[in-house]
Amino acid sequence: MTTIENKFPGKDVSDDDLRTKLRLTAKANPGHRSRFTVAGVEFGGDLVPVFAGPNMVESESLIVDIAKAVKRAGAHFLRGGAFKPLTFPYRSAKYAETREEGIAWLARAKAVAGIPVITEIMEEKYIPLVAGVADILQIGARNMQNYPLIVACARTGKPIMLKRHFGCSLRDWLGAAEYILAEGNEKVILCERGISAPHTHRATSRFLLDLQVVPAAQEVTHLPIVVDPSHATFWRAWVAPMALASVAAGADGVMIEVHPDPPNAAVDPLQPVDYAEFKDIMGRMDAVARAVGRKVLA
Amino acid sequence: MTTIENKFPGKDVSDDDLRTKLRLTAKANPGHRSRFTVAGVEFGGDLVPVFAGPNMVESESLIVDIAKAVKRAGAHFLRGGAFKPLTFPYRSAKYAETREEGIAWLARAKAVAGIPVITEIMEEKYIPLVAGVADILQIGARNMQNYPLIVACARTGKPIMLKRHFGCSLRDWLGAAEYILAEGNEKVILCERGISAPHTHRATSRFLLDLQVVPAAQEVTHLPIVVDPSHATFWRAWVAPMALASVAAGADGVMIEVHPDPPNAAVDPLQPVDYAEFKDIMGRMDAVARAVGRKVLA
Amino acid sequence: MTTIENKFPGKDVSDDDLRTKLRLTAKANPGHRSRFTVAGVEFGGDLVPVFAGPNMVESESLIVDIAKAVKRAGAHFLRGGAFKPLTFPYRSAKYAETREEGIAWLARAKAVAGIPVITEIMEEKYIPLVAGVADILQIGARNMQNYPLIVACARTGKPIMLKRHFGCSLRDWLGAAEYILAEGNEKVILCERGISAPHTHRATSRFLLDLQVVPAAQEVTHLPIVVDPSHATFWRAWVAPMALASVAAGADGVMIEVHPDPPNAAVDPLQPVDYAEFKDIMGRMDAVARAVGRKVLA
Amino acid sequence: MTTIENKFPGKDVSDDDLRTKLRLTAKANPGHRSRFTVAGVEFGGDLVPVFAGPNMVESESLIVDIAKAVKRAGAHFLRGGAFKPLTFPYRSAKYAETREEGIAWLARAKAVAGIPVITEIMEEKYIPLVAGVADILQIGARNMQNYPLIVACARTGKPIMLKRHFGCSLRDWLGAAEYILAEGNEKVILCERGISAPHTHRATSRFLLDLQVVPAAQEVTHLPIVVDPSHATFWRAWVAPMALASVAAGADGVMIEVHPDPPNAAVDPLQPVDYAEFKDIMGRMDAVARAVGRKVLA
Repeated sequence: MTTIENKFPGKDVSDDDLRTKLRLTAKANPGHRSRFTVAGVEFGGDLVPVFAGPNMVESESLIVDIAKAVKRAGAHFLRGGAFKPLTFPYRSAKYAETREEGIAWLARAKAVAGIPVITEIMEEKYIPLVAGVADILQIGARNMQNYPLIVACARTGKPIMLKRHFGCSLRDWLGAAEYILAEGNEKVILCERGISAPHTHRATSRFLLDLQVVPAAQEVTHLPIVVDPSHATFWRAWVAPMALASVAAGADGVMIEVHPDPPNAAVDPLQPVDYAEFKDIMGRMDAVARAVGRKVLA
Repeated sequence: MTTIENKFPGKDVSDDDLRTKLRLTAKANPGHRSRFTVAGVEFGGDLVPVFAGPNMVESESLIVDIAKAVKRAGAHFLRGGAFKPLTFPYRSAKYAETREEGIAWLARAKAVAGIPVITEIMEEKYIPLVAGVADILQIGARNMQNYPLIVACARTGKPIMLKRHFGCSLRDWLGAAEYILAEGNEKVILCERGISAPHTHRATSRFLLDLQVVPAAQEVTHLPIVVDPSHATFWRAWVAPMALASVAAGADGVMIEVHPDPPNAAVDPLQPVDYAEFKDIMGRMDAVARAVGRKVLA
Repeated sequence: MTTIENKFPGKDVSDDDLRTKLRLTAKANPGHRSRFTVAGVEFGGDLVPVFAGPNMVESESLIVDIAKAVKRAGAHFLRGGAFKPLTFPYRSAKYAETREEGIAWLARAKAVAGIPVITEIMEEKYIPLVAGVADILQIGARNMQNYPLIVACARTGKPIMLKRHFGCSLRDWLGAAEYILAEGNEKVILCERGISAPHTHRATSRFLLDLQVVPAAQEVTHLPIVVDPSHATFWRAWVAPMALASVAAGADGVMIEVHPDPPNAAVDPLQPVDYAEFKDIMGRMDAVARAVGRKVLA
Repeated sequence: MTTIENKFPGKDVSDDDLRTKLRLTAKANPGHRSRFTVAGVEFGGDLVPVFAGPNMVESESLIVDIAKAVKRAGAHFLRGGAFKPLTFPYRSAKYAETREEGIAWLARAKAVAGIPVITEIMEEKYIPLVAGVADILQIGARNMQNYPLIVACARTGKPIMLKRHFGCSLRDWLGAAEYILAEGNEKVILCERGISAPHTHRATSRFLLDLQVVPAAQEVTHLPIVVDPSHATFWRAWVAPMALASVAAGADGVMIEVHPDPPNAAVDPLQPVDYAEFKDIMGRMDAVARAVGRKVLA
């Protein structure tokens, strides 16, 4: 008869992975949770920090305005991409990365609004530029397995948010995190942002939010895990319920896309919420957080 | 050049489906939500009813004990299977359906504990037996597309819980619900219980809880939607966070597997919670429910 | 540290499943393959039998015409549904099951064209009717886990084709086959017809053909496995390449949807091939079969 | 009522994508197929080129030996990784990239055996080194969306094999190819190597081979598409049937992992075939190729 089982690794995290390959990422004991502070904001404790802002840093005035609005609503970090992987190589005037200029605008928004910044980095050569402004370096989902980039970012010593690729397992994801920890950089934040799945419920939505990965990750790793319901759902109306569910599931942070005029956002206009809805979501997330012994607002 | 788009239906619910095929299941207007009462428990309103009990009705004493325990903790319905689809045809003494006997035990538990009952029905010939005891007839995931069975159950006039098959789309699921409504039976409760997905995070877990389907369903249908995190996660430690997330996401009910001695449950011993944990989850779900304007406990 | 591994079953067939739960379905030794004959057609040998015909038995004249055409092209069995699960309950004049009448038409087509017949059965009460005409009873994908129906069909002693549900694992599928074998009925034919997958490449295509399951199934079970590329791809232009690939992968049969006027087929008009294309595919499948030591045509 | 449909892009390639975003990758007309020659081997014509070799370039003697063996068996290209993305950062003596040294060994094997070479490139800084030896630059699945790397490779003018990420759609994949064509580099070869799917049939197999993507890609793009059944199945016994199926499905090339001593391969020892089996597969692929009007062997 055929022998099916064997000792080789599979799709899921195994005990052997935890012992020998996820040496630094695995929990040392069941209660082990990383706690660290970034720009005065604590991760891994009672606070559930919120990252908010536009998909793309479109202009200086826009990002400054958004920075002020999300700060006012209680967000802890301003998010926004100046460098951004796009599925196709063509750029219109509207649909273009703002790159060096965008980073400068982010710096301005940070200074004016007094809010720390997270932004994506796609190439090693831009690390000095981006690390000079960003409080957290974001490795986007599409670069989750770009190990040279991850190692180079890790070496800056900057906190790193590692987004999960939509086709990758928890095992793949923690393996990528281990690359950062192995460089001696312990400020790693995981971020779930939706997976490829057989059904996503709308013809326009490419991903499915995987909230089961929150307790699954917390079972095996001490690293904080943030959830991004905006990219996951790709649909404004589902952002609030999924943000609330993330907090209830125990997420250690939430990332929400905010734009003052969603239908005219440069990219992905179906997903951002406007200022009023963001403010409302913040209040509701705080209420849910308090119901589970945590908090979003001070 | 090849033409890709066409007018034929696809994987997701379309406007045309809503207009022509989901005539009764689709919302009549954005605020449309079904509200109805089953055994004095209201669905579709502020209350988030909880269904609790063992996977299988193992013995009379056990089901009576569980009925009392979950009732005491505030559950609104006792769940438990006397008829149950099993992946393989072989039954041990421990791992066996209790069938007619099990239904009688459920009746006893219902009478003794004073709690309404939901149980699965797999064959048309058992409808009179099951419908004589159950307050809600459950169509299991594996029978979601067994349309003759669904229609026969619908004709009893009894409320029906329709579980989503783990490989089916929202479109398939609502299509099955439409079969019930088309028979004039309007008391239909949807239940999400996990999907087949590329990664489920544990080698033993076969499914992934899809919470995105909660707002997706509520966007297009007026029917209440319940979430079953026990079958979805197949792992006790993830039931509580996913139950809380379900309530926060807006679920109209939660189904939780409860057993006094989980490791010795007749089937699926990895997933039930014990009495103490269930009581704790009830309190936490109520707190989350109140944070989103609803309630679990009276 | 958390313990991940345990002895409980998971998503895939395990050695323990093969020994204790797939007692009759598992191979007795690596070379073990079932060989049996249905209406003079051998399964499990060098021949790769072809099942061809329309999705629905629309009218007597049509099914008789198709029966003659596919027989002439070398098909071994006529397929066609008189009873058919439909996603939504509404039927137009065009889009309707023909039921008892359709079975009578199939009987006529069988007699006139001299070709054995396979057709789907959805309800136990129709077993005498369908078994009186059909040489093989087909359990459709949606009923793969309708165990009472499967057992009732098994007891007729008729050969059974068991289609894989699009959301089910090989383990689930073989478990359903074991129900048939456990009734003493050894003429079981598996049929792969596409799975729910994250990407299916066309907005209109709901499934992805899983050819990897052919060697995977043949590794663990002695039962013959047929592939249905028509339902899997839902797109005419992909049927021929996937049919050829099925034969090359070692499939023990192929099922192809054929209609004289595909765009006007009563259901699923995107998937059938017409007579000329079917004849062409038969020749090409035979050439591929001979390249791998088998044959399609006499 | 809610409006579901809209004009925004979704999961699949749309007509609009073909017209406006896949300008160079889309077919100009239904018969449009790219034909080009690399190191004297024609792609897009009757020949189905075969890429063979080990997962990792482990040592000079080994790669030279494999080069001679696969050349002798009729392979058209030697494959082997000197740079290789690994899920975890830790390397044992056995399980290590050989990097610059490995590239030198590949050069030696190429010279000694007289076979052109394909190898993976992971970082822009190694382009001159790798491009000095390789006849085709391979972008691995994990870098499919590493657009800066893709553009830098494209600018070398070297032919590029672009492997599909296991979580990406055909739309994502062709978008990445468009980045190469947009740089004026027209020698692009697509390579399917398995996808993340709900069921992969073995606990150790992480992927499912997607052969439906072969006709799907050929319907919309003129680029040749190669299939790699070794990485897809991760299981030696399934490589031959899936290689034969690839050829029958119309694949424009096949990539097969070969190692003289599979159980002792440095990485992924479950997937390579040995020399004897490779020779056998070559003969069988040629037979299937001829059955569909193409050829593998001269």
